[in-house]
Amino acid sequence: MPDPIVFCGGVAGAWNVVRQTAERGAPLESVARVDKSTRPAADAVWVLAGVTSNLRYTHSTEKRVLDATPSVLGRPSARRAALIPITKSAAWWALAQDERRAVLEEQSRHIAIGSEYLAAISRQLVHCRDQPGAIFDFLTWFEFAATDEVLFDELLAKLRASAEWRFVEREVDIRLEKAA
Amino acid sequence: MPDPIVFCGGVAGAWNVVRQTAERGAPLESVARVDKSTRPAADAVWVLAGVTSNLRYTHSTEKRVLDATPSVLGRPSARRAALIPITKSAAWWALAQDERRAVLEEQSRHIAIGSEYLAAISRQLVHCRDQPGAIFDFLTWFEFAATDEVLFDELLAKLRASAEWRFVEREVDIRLEKAA
Repeated sequence: MPDPIVFCGGVAGAWNVVRQTAERGAPLESVARVDKSTRPAADAVWVLAGVTSNLRYTHSTEKRVLDATPSVLGRPSARRAALIPITKSAAWWALAQDERRAVLEEQSRHIAIGSEYLAAISRQLVHCRDQPGAIFDFLTWFEFAATDEVLFDELLAKLRASAEWRFVEREVDIRLEKAA
Repeated sequence: MPDPIVFCGGVAGAWNVVRQTAERGAPLESVARVDKSTRPAADAVWVLAGVTSNLRYTHSTEKRVLDATPSVLGRPSARRAALIPITKSAAWWALAQDERRAVLEEQSRHIAIGSEYLAAISRQLVHCRDQPGAIFDFLTWFEFAATDEVLFDELLAKLRASAEWRFVEREVDIRLEKAA
């Protein structure tokens, strides 16, 4: 079943904000901390809510690779995290399924590139485009050890250079460090 | 953008219920009328809410066929309608994208069968699986002239006999007639 995931930016939360960058499009209001839970906090500066959902592009051969190295969240060693909310363009959403798949994987190798980093970078994809009042399409969440942030930056650089990213019209990169 | 669509069952609404059948799984409480709008009614017996969304399986060649005969809702001649809420099994949602596509189209010809009826049967697919508290995955809506209900029944019979329908675990068929 789809699970609700809620990110709250504000003065409280399990993650300290190290850096918050508007990569493309409008920034999000700067906050000191981010919390990840299943319900909105009353005192949040911003609330980004969505759900985990079924796979939208991954083929069965690719799914077998992903399933062999499942993303584990909350590892004690994962002291760093990134929340990267993304909005794609109307042109992206108007494409047929096979056209979006072709850009995402055959042209951009999104799934293949991500698979190379499975062991070091845990991740969770939260869908929010279909949620009432959503201002992003996806909330992408990543956890990793501090020493693996360089790998995460490498992964991001590859994706941002891809054909798929021509359809990204808003992207905020929020880097986090576990509080306490 | 995704548009919110809300179906309310109760004593008020633009559509009189002619017949309400639990095809598979639990029934929905019987109501006299159904209303289709964008917000819940306070006095509704049940509220089913979702959003229109992007195509999930349709390929570009199929999209061209669909785009050539766009579904027009609210035609004066369309005095009949059907609301068919559907839930698919956990096994369906656990499949990879190419596996779901293969069942839906290569095995079941869902898009091709639907395309044969475009001129007579207007339809709208409302997604709700990813909505908080949703009890169905989809709310499928159809409008047609009274004389075309036989075509609609033929379309439904073909889909219900397909491989895809082995994954349908709940289906309620609500037939409607325009009130006044």
